[in-house]
Amino acid sequence: MTRLLIELLGFLAACLTTVSFLPQAWLIWKTRSAKGVSLGMYCVFVTGVGCWLIYGFLIGAWPLIIANAITFALSGMILVMKLRFG
Amino acid sequence: MTRLLIELLGFLAACLTTVSFLPQAWLIWKTRSAKGVSLGMYCVFVTGVGCWLIYGFLIGAWPLIIANAITFALSGMILVMKLRFG
Repeated sequence: MTRLLIELLGFLAACLTTVSFLPQAWLIWKTRSAKGVSLGMYCVFVTGVGCWLIYGFLIGAWPLIIANAITFALSGMILVMKLRFG
Repeated sequence: MTRLLIELLGFLAACLTTVSFLPQAWLIWKTRSAKGVSLGMYCVFVTGVGCWLIYGFLIGAWPLIIANAITFALSGMILVMKLRFG
């Protein structure tokens, strides 16, 4: 497998795990409820993604910064809606 | 900031984003319901983590392999429970 194909796979992986939070955010927004969503999960997850973001900045890794900035925004929105809608 | 502290931050980030799926899996198992959890999110997320796992194997990055193997197992369990409990 060529290096380019491997890097494309990594890029695809980053895109998929990043955009996956969109349908969850949309479902909560549409139903105005986040009952089935775990508060514990999003508290820990948003903190973890925040750590990835700082780590990305410290090592100067742009793919890490961009992917985690988007994931931080989306999962942060889910956390805020969970706190607001319950 | 020393290199060791930066690497510890990356390790902490990986631990947090990995274990965060545990409380969600537990909530679904306890309530026998995954109504508020988005099927679209977990279909895309599990596929993405699967790609990260293959990418990790191809570049021989053990931290990527270990973290994504655990995340794949946990988020895969959530997906299976979503399909089973609805």
